[in-house]
Amino acid sequence: MSTTEPGSGKKTGGVGHRHDLRVYYEDTDLAGIVYYANYLKFIERGRTELLRSLGVDQMRIKAEAGVVFAVRRVEADFLMPARMDDLLSVETRVQAMTGARIVLDQRVVRDDVAMFVAEVTLVALTAEGRPARIPAEVRQAFGA
Amino acid sequence: MSTTEPGSGKKTGGVGHRHDLRVYYEDTDLAGIVYYANYLKFIERGRTELLRSLGVDQMRIKAEAGVVFAVRRVEADFLMPARMDDLLSVETRVQAMTGARIVLDQRVVRDDVAMFVAEVTLVALTAEGRPARIPAEVRQAFGA
Amino acid sequence: MSTTEPGSGKKTGGVGHRHDLRVYYEDTDLAGIVYYANYLKFIERGRTELLRSLGVDQMRIKAEAGVVFAVRRVEADFLMPARMDDLLSVETRVQAMTGARIVLDQRVVRDDVAMFVAEVTLVALTAEGRPARIPAEVRQAFGA
Amino acid sequence: MSTTEPGSGKKTGGVGHRHDLRVYYEDTDLAGIVYYANYLKFIERGRTELLRSLGVDQMRIKAEAGVVFAVRRVEADFLMPARMDDLLSVETRVQAMTGARIVLDQRVVRDDVAMFVAEVTLVALTAEGRPARIPAEVRQAFGA
Repeated sequence: MSTTEPGSGKKTGGVGHRHDLRVYYEDTDLAGIVYYANYLKFIERGRTELLRSLGVDQMRIKAEAGVVFAVRRVEADFLMPARMDDLLSVETRVQAMTGARIVLDQRVVRDDVAMFVAEVTLVALTAEGRPARIPAEVRQAFGA
Repeated sequence: MSTTEPGSGKKTGGVGHRHDLRVYYEDTDLAGIVYYANYLKFIERGRTELLRSLGVDQMRIKAEAGVVFAVRRVEADFLMPARMDDLLSVETRVQAMTGARIVLDQRVVRDDVAMFVAEVTLVALTAEGRPARIPAEVRQAFGA
Repeated sequence: MSTTEPGSGKKTGGVGHRHDLRVYYEDTDLAGIVYYANYLKFIERGRTELLRSLGVDQMRIKAEAGVVFAVRRVEADFLMPARMDDLLSVETRVQAMTGARIVLDQRVVRDDVAMFVAEVTLVALTAEGRPARIPAEVRQAFGA
Repeated sequence: MSTTEPGSGKKTGGVGHRHDLRVYYEDTDLAGIVYYANYLKFIERGRTELLRSLGVDQMRIKAEAGVVFAVRRVEADFLMPARMDDLLSVETRVQAMTGARIVLDQRVVRDDVAMFVAEVTLVALTAEGRPARIPAEVRQAFGA
């Protein structure tokens, strides 16, 4: 029996949160490298694990406050190709936060070499897709 | 028997190339909208169909010149949520080109309303992932 | 401007419904072929287009009847590898139907050669994931 | 810094190998549950981790022997819907093996309740997609 929870991570002082993941077949394309869209999946896992590590339950917020988080903008640089079996880490740090949006710096690194970096702007949306305020619980968790 | 080729598109004068696609179950997430990473899949389809419409065969270039195209940078704005069954169009236009890179403006629209816009920088890579010059055939096809 | 709707298809007498699609980068893996899970995406597109061609709107049924279709069982044979740029057709035929389930025969073919065949059993589920009767509208559309 | 390797697993006596994973946004669809094709991704991760735990490096075998593993047949039952944030385990056991094929029993469980079960038949293919013998190293690792 496995005793380790997958994708566990920790808040890391000034470095922010880190989430480890493995590259599988599903992530690669015919060029033999990770398909570019999949880095957006990887950093979403990092954001979800950051929220989990802060005690924020996205599904409860969706059920109780009727609010989901949505990515409003991504500026991404694809620096180095990651490959099958690579062990990657998603590093996430809060860059800025207002009542309406959160800006994160996210990186995907392999052996401390950045493969991918992105600045990601998040907003909150109602179930109908209209802008909402970021729940206070989330802003507090992020230390606002 | 169906007689229409899926995802066909045309070069459209000043507007650039357009590729139509349908949103399916696979594209959505629990928020009931298109998962954000999937827009990068949609615009890749648009780029591939643009190249095809210009007579550029990526697989032949990979086999003959040992070169594949890679996305180096994406600046993307997620403007409106697309949903299941939506009929979307990917619009692609060349913004700039040098011997080493191509910058494209790409939009995903529904009924002429932009859901997603991106500026995408492409480079050419060798099979080993090293930078390569963009093949002359491709630059000529783009009207350089 | 493109005038063809992507992924259009038709009911074809004894042959069933056919939906055409193109293989893109996103569909491939490092073996240079279509990643095996993606055939399940392809045949879902075929089922959705079959329902659309019959005038059945899955999203309306979800909203009005609170019912979604779910795959209960798949028996799939992966016969030949499909590759980037391949033009594939998903062929779908109703094999059997009861009040509680629909069994479909689905094939993915390239130039009339089967790459993938599957027998797919569908059931209807409530929003809470409990079994439901297949809506009469759907059974009638399938000619029950 | 996180000290746990994601998706680690162990061989477990009569039970076979177990690989843990978390459900993320990317895995869900508009029905609020894991999209059906994604279970095939999950069990592929389980197979890859099983091979890794046995010391079998698929990429080295691809480079040295020119052989990749391919799924030839899947019989899958979708029993219960998994949801966002679920912690799932992929259990994999060798059911049968010959020189040409391996049959695996795979299950995806949540709190020891099976959500998905599959019988998966694997074959070995050359780079050109032709059948190959399963490398002796792999057969030995599986205890043949």
